[in-house]
Amino acid sequence: MSGPQRIEINEVGPRDGLQIEQAMVATDDKVAFVDALSACGFARIEVTSFTSPKAIPALADAQEVMRRIARRPGVIYTALIPNIRGLERALEVGVDEMNLVMSCSETHNRANLRMTREQSFAELAGILRLAVEAGKPCNVSLSTAFGCPFDGEVAASDVMALAQRLAQAGAQGITLCDTTGMAYPTQVAQLCERFQRELPATALTVHLHNTRGMALANAMAAWQTGVWRFDAAAGGLGGCPYAPGASGNVNTEELVHMFECMGVQTGVTLTRLLDIVRALPQLVQRGLSNALVTAGPRLTTHQPPAWLAERFPAA
Amino acid sequence: MSGPQRIEINEVGPRDGLQIEQAMVATDDKVAFVDALSACGFARIEVTSFTSPKAIPALADAQEVMRRIARRPGVIYTALIPNIRGLERALEVGVDEMNLVMSCSETHNRANLRMTREQSFAELAGILRLAVEAGKPCNVSLSTAFGCPFDGEVAASDVMALAQRLAQAGAQGITLCDTTGMAYPTQVAQLCERFQRELPATALTVHLHNTRGMALANAMAAWQTGVWRFDAAAGGLGGCPYAPGASGNVNTEELVHMFECMGVQTGVTLTRLLDIVRALPQLVQRGLSNALVTAGPRLTTHQPPAWLAERFPAA
Repeated sequence: MSGPQRIEINEVGPRDGLQIEQAMVATDDKVAFVDALSACGFARIEVTSFTSPKAIPALADAQEVMRRIARRPGVIYTALIPNIRGLERALEVGVDEMNLVMSCSETHNRANLRMTREQSFAELAGILRLAVEAGKPCNVSLSTAFGCPFDGEVAASDVMALAQRLAQAGAQGITLCDTTGMAYPTQVAQLCERFQRELPATALTVHLHNTRGMALANAMAAWQTGVWRFDAAAGGLGGCPYAPGASGNVNTEELVHMFECMGVQTGVTLTRLLDIVRALPQLVQRGLSNALVTAGPRLTTHQPPAWLAERFPAA
Repeated sequence: MSGPQRIEINEVGPRDGLQIEQAMVATDDKVAFVDALSACGFARIEVTSFTSPKAIPALADAQEVMRRIARRPGVIYTALIPNIRGLERALEVGVDEMNLVMSCSETHNRANLRMTREQSFAELAGILRLAVEAGKPCNVSLSTAFGCPFDGEVAASDVMALAQRLAQAGAQGITLCDTTGMAYPTQVAQLCERFQRELPATALTVHLHNTRGMALANAMAAWQTGVWRFDAAAGGLGGCPYAPGASGNVNTEELVHMFECMGVQTGVTLTRLLDIVRALPQLVQRGLSNALVTAGPRLTTHQPPAWLAERFPAA
C-alpha cells in the first residue's frame, strides 16, 4: 500500500461549499474565510465563481472578493468560470487559474448548466481559447464522472473521451468529480489508472463527496494509483441540489489528517485548519457534524479514570 | 487494487452496540433485533455479553435472549465472555462461539476490565482451556490494537506478542480492534500483513470505528492484504466510554454497500439491513445520522427537474 509521498489540496470550500449554503455570507466574511485558509498551507484555493450576478446574486461580489483577499505567495487562487463574460471578469482581477465545469452525463449537464453537453463543450472550448491566449492555465472539472443521479452509471470510456477532447482544446488539467458520492474504490482506481495512462500530460485532480461514507476510501484508491491532487472542502461544505440528502465534499480536515497520519505531506497545518472548521457553523449559520473536530486528531489522549491510580497503585 | 472476492461480516450491534446505549432495551426488542439480523445473511452475530448480572443489569437477560432467538442455520451466534462464570452461562444456552476480550495497552485494560493485562491474560487462558475442553471455538478481541486513548501509540510488536500468546493458549481467532478510531490505512495494512504472515493459522478479523472518518478506508486497507472477516454494527452503533466524542463502530450498511459496489460478496441483503437501520432510532431512543440511509444506495436515481423536458424537448 503506497502512493505519492506528497499531495496537494485544492480547498474548494469558499466556492463549491458556500455556493450551496442557504445563508447569505457577507463579502467581509468571505474574504476573511479565504485569508484564514491562505494561512493553512493549501496549494490552491477556489475562491469564487464568476457566474452572472443577475443569475446568482450571492456571488455578485466575486470581483470584490478576489481584489480584497491577501494573496499569499505560493498559493494558486482559482475561480469557477462558466462563460466568456466570466472569464473577462476573472482576468480583470487576476485570477491565477481558471476552473471550468461540465458534466459527463447528459441529463446532469442539462439540469446543472441548462445546456446540452455539446453546447457546454463549445462554450468551454471558447473560454479555453481565450484563456490560453491570455496565458492563464485552465482546469476543467468533469461532474458525474463516477455516476449520475439521473442517468445512473456513466461509462469510463465516455469520461475519457470528453477528457481527451478538452485536453486537446487546451485544458491543462482535468478534475474527475464524484458529484453525488457514487464512486467506489475499485472504480476510482480503474478510472484514475486509465486517465494517467491515456492522458499522462494532463494534470489529474480527484474531487470526492462523502455521500455514502466512501470519500476517504476513494481518496486512498486514487492515491494508490499515483494521484496527488485532491479537491476538498473545509468542514465538508457543499453538496448537490439534484441529489436529495447528498452530503457535501470530502472534509479537508479528515483528508489532511488521514494523509498526515500516513506520513504523506499535505502542506496543510491541521491545527490551523481545525480552528477554521470550528468557526464554520457561525459562517454558514447551520450545525456541521464533524467526527474529527469532535474526537480530535488520532494521538489526542485522555486522562484515565480517577479511580485507576487507587486501584492500581504504582509498584 | 484487489482483495478477497468474498467477505464475512460479524454483526456486533446487539452486543457491542446496545451495551453502550443509554436506553434500556427490552428483552423482546433485543430478540427481535437479532432475529431481524439473522434474516440479512450475516456470517456471525454477536448476540450478547455474559457479564455479571449484578455489574451490568442491562445484560442480565443474556441467557434469555440466547434461548429465545430463532437460530438460523448457517449463522454463527457468538457472545462476549468476560470470565469463567460467563462461559458456564454461555455453554448452558449453546452459544456457538465465544468472544473474549482484553486490551493491547495497559491503561485501557485496567480502565476497561479493571485488571492488569497479565491478570486478564490469566483469566482468558483459563476460559480458553475450558472452552477448548467443551469443544467450543474461541476468538479474542484485542482492544486498542492501533492506538490507546490513554497511552497513545501501541507498538505492533506488542500486539503481535499478545496475539501469539493467545493463539498458543487456544484462541482460534483474533480480532484486531481499533477501539477508538485511531487506525489509519497504512498502519492497518502493515499490521494485517504481519499478522497473516506470523499467525497464518489464526483467523483474523478486523474491527474498525469511524471516529475520525477512516473506517471504510481502513477496511479497504485490510481487505487489500487479504483480510475477509470484519466486525461491523448496524447503524454504526457503539462507541467507547473512555474516548469522549468517539463515534461508533463502522456502519455495517456502509461496509456492505462499499464491498457490494466493488462486486465483493458479503452475503448480506442490503435492503433488509437498511430496513433494520431505519428502525434503530426507535430501538435506542436517539437520533442516528446515516449517510447511506439518507442518500440511498449508489444507483438510486432521481427524476430530473420538471422544466428539463420543456427546455430540451425530445428530438
